[in-house]
Amino acid sequence: MALSTNFLNLLFGRPLATSEERAEHIGPIAGIPIFGLDALSSAAYGPEAALTLLLPLGLLGVKYIVPVSATILILLTIVYFSYRQTIDAYPKGGGSYTVASRNLSEGAGLLAAAALMIDYILTAAVGISAGVGALISAVPSLQPHTLQLCLAVLVILTVVNMRGVRDTGVAFMIPTYLFTGTLLIVIVAGAWQVLHSVGHPHPATPLPAIPAATATVSLWLLLKVFSSGCTAMTGVEAVSNGVMAFRDDTRRNAKITLTIIIVLLAALLAGIALLCRAYGIAATNPDGPGYESVLSMLTRAVMGHGVFYYVTIGSVLLVLALSANTAFADFPRLTRAIALDDYMPHVFLLRGRRLLYSWGIYVLVVLTAVLLIVFGGVTDRLIPLYAIGAFLAFTLSQAGMVMHWKRKGKARARMALNGLGALATGITAAVVLVAKFVQGAWITALLIALMILLMRAVKRHYVRVARSTALARPIVPAEVREPIVVVPIDRWSRITEKAVSFALGMSNDIRCLHVQTSDEPDEICRDWEEKIAAPLRNAGKCVPQLKILQSPYRYILTPVVDYILAVERESEAHRVCVLVPELVVRHWWENLMHNRRADLLKVILLLRGNRRIVVINIPWYLERD
Amino acid sequence: MALSTNFLNLLFGRPLATSEERAEHIGPIAGIPIFGLDALSSAAYGPEAALTLLLPLGLLGVKYIVPVSATILILLTIVYFSYRQTIDAYPKGGGSYTVASRNLSEGAGLLAAAALMIDYILTAAVGISAGVGALISAVPSLQPHTLQLCLAVLVILTVVNMRGVRDTGVAFMIPTYLFTGTLLIVIVAGAWQVLHSVGHPHPATPLPAIPAATATVSLWLLLKVFSSGCTAMTGVEAVSNGVMAFRDDTRRNAKITLTIIIVLLAALLAGIALLCRAYGIAATNPDGPGYESVLSMLTRAVMGHGVFYYVTIGSVLLVLALSANTAFADFPRLTRAIALDDYMPHVFLLRGRRLLYSWGIYVLVVLTAVLLIVFGGVTDRLIPLYAIGAFLAFTLSQAGMVMHWKRKGKARARMALNGLGALATGITAAVVLVAKFVQGAWITALLIALMILLMRAVKRHYVRVARSTALARPIVPAEVREPIVVVPIDRWSRITEKAVSFALGMSNDIRCLHVQTSDEPDEICRDWEEKIAAPLRNAGKCVPQLKILQSPYRYILTPVVDYILAVERESEAHRVCVLVPELVVRHWWENLMHNRRADLLKVILLLRGNRRIVVINIPWYLERD
Repeated sequence: MALSTNFLNLLFGRPLATSEERAEHIGPIAGIPIFGLDALSSAAYGPEAALTLLLPLGLLGVKYIVPVSATILILLTIVYFSYRQTIDAYPKGGGSYTVASRNLSEGAGLLAAAALMIDYILTAAVGISAGVGALISAVPSLQPHTLQLCLAVLVILTVVNMRGVRDTGVAFMIPTYLFTGTLLIVIVAGAWQVLHSVGHPHPATPLPAIPAATATVSLWLLLKVFSSGCTAMTGVEAVSNGVMAFRDDTRRNAKITLTIIIVLLAALLAGIALLCRAYGIAATNPDGPGYESVLSMLTRAVMGHGVFYYVTIGSVLLVLALSANTAFADFPRLTRAIALDDYMPHVFLLRGRRLLYSWGIYVLVVLTAVLLIVFGGVTDRLIPLYAIGAFLAFTLSQAGMVMHWKRKGKARARMALNGLGALATGITAAVVLVAKFVQGAWITALLIALMILLMRAVKRHYVRVARSTALARPIVPAEVREPIVVVPIDRWSRITEKAVSFALGMSNDIRCLHVQTSDEPDEICRDWEEKIAAPLRNAGKCVPQLKILQSPYRYILTPVVDYILAVERESEAHRVCVLVPELVVRHWWENLMHNRRADLLKVILLLRGNRRIVVINIPWYLERD
Repeated sequence: MALSTNFLNLLFGRPLATSEERAEHIGPIAGIPIFGLDALSSAAYGPEAALTLLLPLGLLGVKYIVPVSATILILLTIVYFSYRQTIDAYPKGGGSYTVASRNLSEGAGLLAAAALMIDYILTAAVGISAGVGALISAVPSLQPHTLQLCLAVLVILTVVNMRGVRDTGVAFMIPTYLFTGTLLIVIVAGAWQVLHSVGHPHPATPLPAIPAATATVSLWLLLKVFSSGCTAMTGVEAVSNGVMAFRDDTRRNAKITLTIIIVLLAALLAGIALLCRAYGIAATNPDGPGYESVLSMLTRAVMGHGVFYYVTIGSVLLVLALSANTAFADFPRLTRAIALDDYMPHVFLLRGRRLLYSWGIYVLVVLTAVLLIVFGGVTDRLIPLYAIGAFLAFTLSQAGMVMHWKRKGKARARMALNGLGALATGITAAVVLVAKFVQGAWITALLIALMILLMRAVKRHYVRVARSTALARPIVPAEVREPIVVVPIDRWSRITEKAVSFALGMSNDIRCLHVQTSDEPDEICRDWEEKIAAPLRNAGKCVPQLKILQSPYRYILTPVVDYILAVERESEAHRVCVLVPELVVRHWWENLMHNRRADLLKVILLLRGNRRIVVINIPWYLERD
C-alpha cells in the first residue's frame, strides 16, 4: 500500500489495471526502439571491432572488411528468416529457451536459458559503459565520474522501464530514429560522392594515414575478425522473445518490426563497410593517443566537421548508452518463461503496478550495477564474454525449429532454412568460443554451467514441495468444523464493529479479547452490554464472549498470544481464527505508526502455534477527516 | 519465519517464550553491569574533565579538585536518595519521563523524554568513541581504523544486547568488576601509602611536572569545572528506568543495585580526587604531545609500571567502550514508555524474540552509527552536547516527585528531599547550559525542541485515527452475513484440502477458482467430482462451486483478481473472503520461492477492491521429506 504515493506515481506512472493491458501493447513504431536498440546500436561497434583486428594488415585490412561484412550479412539474413518462422510458430513468445526446451530437450532449453540470461546482463553492462566511454572520449574531463555516469544511466533506464512498455517505446523513439536517420544520410551522401568521384572520393576533412602492414593474412586472423564482427548480430532474437508485447495481430506486427530492424541493420553494416573501403578508413589504436572511432572518421570524411557531425556523433553516444534497454525489455520476459516451467522462483511470474515482470527488472538492475561497480564502469574486459551466449542461443533456437518442423511432418523448405541457420550460427558459436576462449569466454562457459545447476536445484525444490503436499484420498467431510474466532478488541469503534460483524458471519464461537492495563475497568467493559451484547441478543443472533485479560505491566501482545495458544491447546480439532484489524493508510509513513503489531502477532503464532491457528487481517481504510 | 534459522539462534540465542520472562529477570549482581556501566565508567572521565579545566591554575588547581569533587558527591547523594524514592513510588519503571508527565504536565514529560533520548544516543556514541580513542592512544598504529573499530564495538554491543537482558549482564560482569576492583585496589593502596608517608607519598614512577599557573581563580572558572565534573553523574537515572528488569522483590533489588552503584561511584570519585591531590597529579594537555590520562598517571604512581598497571588500564578502556551499553538497556524502555502514551509510534511497544523492545534497539543503533560515521569515530565535539539532557531530566524528575508527595498529602520529609534535589540539579543544569552553550549545547536545545514537535505530531496522528474510527451507535445485527469465500486452487493437494475444509467451516457460499492455462482440461477438473464434490454431497455438506478461468497467456493473478473484483461488485452487501495458502518454510531462502504471489494478491485487492474483500492466508507448514 505504501507504494501508491504521489511520488511513485510521478516517477513510474499511475498503477495500471489489467484491463488496460491492451493499451500497453505496441506497434512497430514503438517496437523498433524497444526491441531494436541493441541490434541497431551494434552497427556502431561491430564494424569497428572487425577493423581493429584487421589493423595489422594495413591497407589490405581495409579491403577485407567488405567480404567479412558480406559473410556477416548472409548469416544475418539466414537468422532473420528463421526468426520469422519462430514468431509464426510461437505467437506467445518464442525465445530460444521456449523453442529449445519444447523441441529439443530440457537440457538444451536450460543451456539456451542460461546463455541468454548471462548475455542480457552483459548487454546491459557493456552497453551502458560503451556509451559512457564514448561520451568520455568526447569530454575527457568527465573521466573521474565514469562509474557515477554509468550508474546514472542505469537509474534512468530503470525508471523509464518501470513506467511500462509503451512509455519506454515513446521515450527511446527519438534517439533511435535520430541515430538511424543520420547514419543513413551519411551513407547515402557518401555513396553519392563515391559514385561521382568514380570510386575515389576526397574526404571533407583529412583522415589519419593507414599504418603499414605488420602481419600477413591467415585463416585464423580472418576467423577472429569474423567472430568480432559478429557482435553486430547480438540482440536480433529480442523480437521473437517479446511477441506478446505487440498489438493484434501480434505475429504480423512482430514480423514487421523484425523486418524493419534487420533491413536497417543490414543497410548500416553494408554501407559502413563499403564506405570504409572507398574512403580508406582503418581503425585507430584504441589504447593509443590519437584514437578516433570509425563512425566519427566516416561521418566527418563524408559530411565535414560541422553541426551535422556533432548531431550524428551525439546520437551514436545516446544510442550506445540506451542499447542496454533491450536487456530490460527481454530479460524479464525470459525469466518469466523459465519460471513458468519451475526452473526459476515464481516471483518472476508476478506483474507489478505497470504490468511488468518487476522482479526480472530488479534482478537485472542489481546484477548490472554489481558488474558496473566491480569493473568501475569500464567493461572492456567483459566484451570477450559477450556474443557467445547470443550465438549459443541462436544455434539452439534454430536446431529446435528443425525438430519443430520435423514433428509437424511437413514444410521441408522451412526445415532446411532453419537447418542452414543452425549450422551457420553453430559454426559461428564454435569460432567465437575458440577465438575468445582464453580472453575470458571460459568464464561465460563456467557461469552457464553454474546457472544450469542452480535452475535444476530450483526445479527440484518445487518438485519436492509438490510431492510432499500431494494427496491421493478425497476430502474428509467430518473434519469440517466451525472455527473458534478470537477478536482482540481495544475499545468500541468502527474497526471493532467491522471485526465483530465479520466474526459473527463466520462462526458462532467468538471470543472477544480485551487486555486491561489499568486498575479500574476500561470503557469497553461498560460499552459491551449496550453496544454489542444487547443488540445481538435482541436480534436473536449469537452473542460473543468477552474475555478480559489483566496486564498490570501494560504488555499487550504477551497475554493475547498466551490466551490464543491456550485456546488452541484446549480445542483439539477446531481451527482458531484470530481477527486483527489492519489499517490501510494513505501515506507510506503512516505505516510506521500502525500494523506492525498485527504482523508480529502473525509471525509469533505461526512459529509457536500448533498449526491450527489462522490470523486474518481485517482491512480498515483510514481516511482524511 | 525467516528469522528462526540456526544462524540467528547461534548469534542472538533461541527465541524466548513469554513464560520465560521471569528467568530473564535479574538481581543486583547482573544489574550493576547493565545499569551501572555508564555511571561507573564516568569515574574515568569526570575527574579528568574537571582537572583539565583546572590546568591553568597550576598547583592550586590540583588542590581545588577536592572541594569540587566534594560538591559533586553531595549532589550525587541528594540525587541518590531522591531516585530511591522514585523507585519506591514507580515500581513499574519510573524514568524521568514517567514521573514528570504524571506529576507535572504533558509538556514537562515531553521535555524530559526528548532530553533523555538525545542523551542516551550521545552516551552510546561518546562512550564507544572514548573507549576506542583510549585504545588508539595506547596503540597509535590503529589510528587509520578508528571508525571501523567504533562500528565493530557497536556491532558487538548490538549482538550482545539482542541476546536479552540476562546474557548482557553476564557478558559485561567481568569488565565491570575488573574495572571497579582494580581501581579500588589502587585507591586503597594509595591511601595506605599516603598515611604511611604522613601525606607526602613518593610516586612509584616519576610523574610529569605540574605547569606553572597562567590564570587566577574565578567563580566562572569554578562553575565550568563543576559542570564538566558533573559528567561523572550521567547514567545515575538508569536504574529507576529499568526497575521492571529486576527479579521479585523488584523495588528492593533495584534499590540495592542503585545503592551499590552510587557507593562504588562515590568511592571512586572521592579516592581519585584525594589521591590526585596527595600525589600532585594534574591533567596533561589532551592535544599536546606528552598526553597521559589522569587514571594512567595515578595507577602507575601508586602501583608502578608493571602487570597490574596494564590490567587496570585495559579494564578502563574496555569499560569506557562498553559504557554505551547503558543506553542499550534504557533507551528501548524509555521509548516504550513514551509510545504507551501515543507520543511515539507503537512499534516501540513490541517485544521481539528475546523479549526486548527490538525497535528501540534498532533506532538507537542506527542513530549511533550515523553519529559515529558523520564524526568519523571522533566524537570529542559531541561532549559539550552531553550532560545537559541528563541534568534536565534529573531536575524534571525531582520536581515531579515533589508534586507526587504533595498530591499524596504526606511525607513532608520526602518532599523536602526531592525539592532539594530539584533545586540542586536545576542549578547544575542551568550552569551546564550556560557554560557550554556556545560550545554546542544550543544544538541539544534545538534538537530537544524538534523532538518535542515530532512527538506531538505523532500523538496528533493517533488522536485523529481514534477520532475518525470512533463509533457511538451499537452494532447493526442485520449487517451480519455469511461471507462469500473464494478459494483459488491449483490441483488437489493437502494444501487445497486444508483451504477447502477451512472455507466450508466458515460459509456455505464457496467458489473454488482454477486458472487453466493449457488447452486440455487440467487434472483438478477430473479430481473435482471424485475428491471433493461427491464426498461432501454424500456427507450432506454444502458443495463448493468450481469456476474454471481460461488464461491462454498463462497469467495467473490477473484472471483471479478480475474474478474476485467482479464477485465483490455483484454481491453488494456480502464480504468476500479470499483464501490463499501461505507456505511456512524452514529456511529463509525458501521464501524466495514462495508466498510472494499471496502478498501481491493481497496488496492489489486492498488497493483496488471496494473495502469488502478480506484476504486470508491459510498457513501450510512445509516439512522435509
